[in-house]
Amino acid sequence: MPVVIVEMWEGRTVEQKKQLVEGITDTFTRIGVPKEALHIIIQDIPKHNWGHAGRLASETD
Amino acid sequence: MPVVIVEMWEGRTVEQKKQLVEGITDTFTRIGVPKEALHIIIQDIPKHNWGHAGRLASETD
Amino acid sequence: MPVVIVEMWEGRTVEQKKQLVEGITDTFTRIGVPKEALHIIIQDIPKHNWGHAGRLASETD
Amino acid sequence: MPVVIVEMWEGRTVEQKKQLVEGITDTFTRIGVPKEALHIIIQDIPKHNWGHAGRLASETD
Amino acid sequence: MPVVIVEMWEGRTVEQKKQLVEGITDTFTRIGVPKEALHIIIQDIPKHNWGHAGRLASETD
Amino acid sequence: MPVVIVEMWEGRTVEQKKQLVEGITDTFTRIGVPKEALHIIIQDIPKHNWGHAGRLASETD
Repeated sequence: MPVVIVEMWEGRTVEQKKQLVEGITDTFTRIGVPKEALHIIIQDIPKHNWGHAGRLASETD
Repeated sequence: MPVVIVEMWEGRTVEQKKQLVEGITDTFTRIGVPKEALHIIIQDIPKHNWGHAGRLASETD
Repeated sequence: MPVVIVEMWEGRTVEQKKQLVEGITDTFTRIGVPKEALHIIIQDIPKHNWGHAGRLASETD
Repeated sequence: MPVVIVEMWEGRTVEQKKQLVEGITDTFTRIGVPKEALHIIIQDIPKHNWGHAGRLASETD
Repeated sequence: MPVVIVEMWEGRTVEQKKQLVEGITDTFTRIGVPKEALHIIIQDIPKHNWGHAGRLASETD
Repeated sequence: MPVVIVEMWEGRTVEQKKQLVEGITDTFTRIGVPKEALHIIIQDIPKHNWGHAGRLASETD
């Protein structure tokens, strides 16, 4: 524990995901969570599966 | 805010997802949520990843 | 199936949740999902548990 | 890893949650997942926050 | 209801998913949930989308 | 977008949640996500609702 689930548009590189995992982990260690205790799950969502303001992100982007 | 996550079997068209996003957004606006505040995330789940009544949906369908 | 999870600030009335469930269900029936097949789960999130733009919603509201 | 999230109506006892955690963990160990690797998160949902077939579970129950 | 969401590394076979669904369902029936009431959703997560202990699982595996 | 969901044991202070939101937001801005685009939802989970290694966290803690 804890578990962090990230939902974001697909298209990020593995390098960017590495940076996310490092930065989020650092943040949790600063409030006392040991880094071994943290799981982070990234879900890549296609823009045609993401709605905002009543429209698909694939239509507005 | 709010965030709506939809888990459903894969196979819906982009047109159907557009209808879902429009209809769900309309519903929230009727209780006073501005449409810009609403995010909707659709996760397409293969039938062999969906269990119901003790069986995979890919077996029973 | 499908399953819809709604994350929103706590404070909505049962009447408003009823309207959400009715409206979201109508939307799914219009793309061919029978209403018996739809589950909707609402999670009431306190504003001090919701971050936006780098701040808790309880600070900015 | 893995992470299992259970959404269910509130009202289950701690004893029943213990049984769920034991049974789900056994199931994962039988496909080769070490029990130390498994996290299970239970979310108790009030019936007035659960919609099914277009109605709140608190109305139909 | 209930709904169970499983997040795990991709790579499991359909046979293993079948075993998971059967075992998890059995567990719920033992606390009185009818098997028809249970939905289980499996999300296959690539290792480069799973962070643990500050690193992507694809780096450490 | 993106949406980050944090599942963690209940008991963290509002001050610690503020730190989490700031740190996670900083991390996303470093890969180019504007802070206004980021929503973070924190779910406080009681230890008797969290299973690890086949036991409830409330038993082992």
